[in-house]
Amino acid sequence: MSSPLSPALLTDRYELTMLGAALADGTAERDCVFEVFARRLPHGRRYGVLAGTGRLLEALPHFRFGDAELAALTAQGIDDPRLLDHLAGFRFTGDVDGYAEGDLYFPGSPVLTVRAPFGQAVLLETLALSVLNHDSAIAAAGARMIGAAAGRPCIEMGSRRTHEEAAVASARAAALVGFAATSNLAAGARYGIPTTGTSAHAFTLLHDDEAAAFRAQLATLGTGTTLLVDTYDTEQGIRTAVEVAGPELGAVRLDSGDLAIEATRARALLDSLGNTSTRVIVTSDLDEYAIAALAAAPVDGYGVGTSLVTGSGSPTVGMVYKLVERDGVPVAKNSEGKRSVGGRKTAVRRHDADGTATAEVVSTGPVAAAAHDRELLVPLVRGGAVVDPRSPAETLAAARELHARVRDTLPTEAWSLSRGEPAIDTVPA
Amino acid sequence: MSSPLSPALLTDRYELTMLGAALADGTAERDCVFEVFARRLPHGRRYGVLAGTGRLLEALPHFRFGDAELAALTAQGIDDPRLLDHLAGFRFTGDVDGYAEGDLYFPGSPVLTVRAPFGQAVLLETLALSVLNHDSAIAAAGARMIGAAAGRPCIEMGSRRTHEEAAVASARAAALVGFAATSNLAAGARYGIPTTGTSAHAFTLLHDDEAAAFRAQLATLGTGTTLLVDTYDTEQGIRTAVEVAGPELGAVRLDSGDLAIEATRARALLDSLGNTSTRVIVTSDLDEYAIAALAAAPVDGYGVGTSLVTGSGSPTVGMVYKLVERDGVPVAKNSEGKRSVGGRKTAVRRHDADGTATAEVVSTGPVAAAAHDRELLVPLVRGGAVVDPRSPAETLAAARELHARVRDTLPTEAWSLSRGEPAIDTVPA
Repeated sequence: MSSPLSPALLTDRYELTMLGAALADGTAERDCVFEVFARRLPHGRRYGVLAGTGRLLEALPHFRFGDAELAALTAQGIDDPRLLDHLAGFRFTGDVDGYAEGDLYFPGSPVLTVRAPFGQAVLLETLALSVLNHDSAIAAAGARMIGAAAGRPCIEMGSRRTHEEAAVASARAAALVGFAATSNLAAGARYGIPTTGTSAHAFTLLHDDEAAAFRAQLATLGTGTTLLVDTYDTEQGIRTAVEVAGPELGAVRLDSGDLAIEATRARALLDSLGNTSTRVIVTSDLDEYAIAALAAAPVDGYGVGTSLVTGSGSPTVGMVYKLVERDGVPVAKNSEGKRSVGGRKTAVRRHDADGTATAEVVSTGPVAAAAHDRELLVPLVRGGAVVDPRSPAETLAAARELHARVRDTLPTEAWSLSRGEPAIDTVPA
Repeated sequence: MSSPLSPALLTDRYELTMLGAALADGTAERDCVFEVFARRLPHGRRYGVLAGTGRLLEALPHFRFGDAELAALTAQGIDDPRLLDHLAGFRFTGDVDGYAEGDLYFPGSPVLTVRAPFGQAVLLETLALSVLNHDSAIAAAGARMIGAAAGRPCIEMGSRRTHEEAAVASARAAALVGFAATSNLAAGARYGIPTTGTSAHAFTLLHDDEAAAFRAQLATLGTGTTLLVDTYDTEQGIRTAVEVAGPELGAVRLDSGDLAIEATRARALLDSLGNTSTRVIVTSDLDEYAIAALAAAPVDGYGVGTSLVTGSGSPTVGMVYKLVERDGVPVAKNSEGKRSVGGRKTAVRRHDADGTATAEVVSTGPVAAAAHDRELLVPLVRGGAVVDPRSPAETLAAARELHARVRDTLPTEAWSLSRGEPAIDTVPA
């Protein structure tokens, strides 16, 4: 459900604790560069998909501490007057660069760079990571499903399997990587994603018999609708559907059983009844592996729920927000297993003459330009203002378009669903 | 980020499609009973923890279709006047019963029962499942961690690893199962959960050296604070911490390396320096297994992030919302692998004379009372009104108290972290 409070409270307390101490000793004014990156791709994935940047930029102007937020902090014992004063006046005035939303990323890719005084930049850590870690996880899973579907349409329908607001962000991330539609009405309203939906088993059970339910649905939605045929007996369900709807029936949906067998049977039965243009849609615990396994089955579309909205085994992608420069000096921690590289990074993607990506060049110094290089960092915020403000729907459409273009540059091994190494190496300049 | 629209749009389109068709043929008025249950526990877990009911009841009065929501629907092509009329006037007037929030559940437990005309009850499906599936997944993971921690305090700090609003719900679910505090400020504000937080590596890197960072933190937070000592070299970090803070230093935090070895070394070093009451707090990719493995190490508290907010391998719990009665007639689907049992259920938990749970009795008929039985279903909503309205903080406190009481009734095999069968069987009356 929606929060009555500003996104500024969607923040870990330690950001404020650090800020309070930095205000006291003057270090809050130090010019800082923080970078967001992932140390590795989860689960032996071959590539990552950056998603969420647009949502983060949408939230930025609302990231303020008004009276309600300050009162909420005081109630939690945060009562340092200098800190509360700073928060009351907080406006982000720094610069943000980043990979364009929808682009691919690899281990160490600097997907977001925030430059601002410490007292500003530190406040954005939690929200930036929440948004990017979640949305990129869903996008990565969705991209693998789109690849496995090999051109057949995929529909996102996982809202009921994840937090109600995460559901909306999941629908957005799915659309970004090429899903054709979502079941989620709020995602349609906020982002202009096409919404679809026909009926559940409950609708059939509500009626005296299956034929009555089908007739009611056809009367309201027309013959082009999709009838759910597996409530009682799938073969009989298909026969009843054809009987009631006639040869123009849009589709049947199968939501149980061995889907390859069921789809093959359904196709044969529909054809034998003359319904050669009625499509077969499958749903029920699909993930990228199940979709790939259905490649040879006569399936016309996939509805995907749980696996998509939970990131298909990787519900988060491990992005971190690290201080890499302070007053122009590179800084880095040395903690075991979590060492970081100091200094602000630039990044280009190298390609061969055919346009296939060959390397992710990430460097603290200038990168000597090679033919077919693409600069990966673009300016997102300057002096606190979003550089290219667009509506949420336009932002999503641009990211979707970019993603479709960039995924075509991946080497073929990137499409393997099995665990392995990243499709391209991250290399220094 | 917060939604400007009502939770009514956090809904799958097919709920409205079914409703439109049911309004057209008159079945929308049929008296229906829907039940929420899980067919199985994920991942070989021994018990489930019901969480989210309080959040759902909080949302119920806001589940309305106002002008903004109706306009959003029309823009998506939902323009059936009868349907829009019905939605504009929609107020839930039905009854809801359910397990008390914080109670345990097992396969088939009817954790929520909604009785209302179809035209009302069908609308609540998506939101009810989103909330219960998410929150129960986090609660289940958290409960296993609390069990593994065996009395040592656990702190929730996973906000950055999940959707920004899911983070708040996760903090709530963690508090429900016994976490002592959260890092999330919004969770503190909404639910009265204690918030904590000291500093990140960035704070040390911001300063000219570690001692300066420690001094700044101590000056603001006092000697009782927790210093993060592994930015450069942990042994030196601890020595510097003790030098700067003295014998009253509250705690040191270790966030890298082999935590059992690091904690043992830290304890020995602290003791040798005379800081025998300075606690050792560990963080860094902890889950219930890692916590259990640290049982013998000198650790005073655990900070848990990623694994908790992603449900430790099970980010959703597979709850479904099924029509079980229509105008008093039991109904059930027969889909392969997804068969359901028709009829409204009652449920009691059976216990032995020592108060240990022995069975979950779930029945469509009356259950003959046995000694030590506990009725599991309580009235939550009557005629659309919440039966026992409380503040969000009070609701959480009651659920936390109930959970603590009920978990003590589990048989000892329930505490095993390995995969297995549910701790008690679900049986008919």
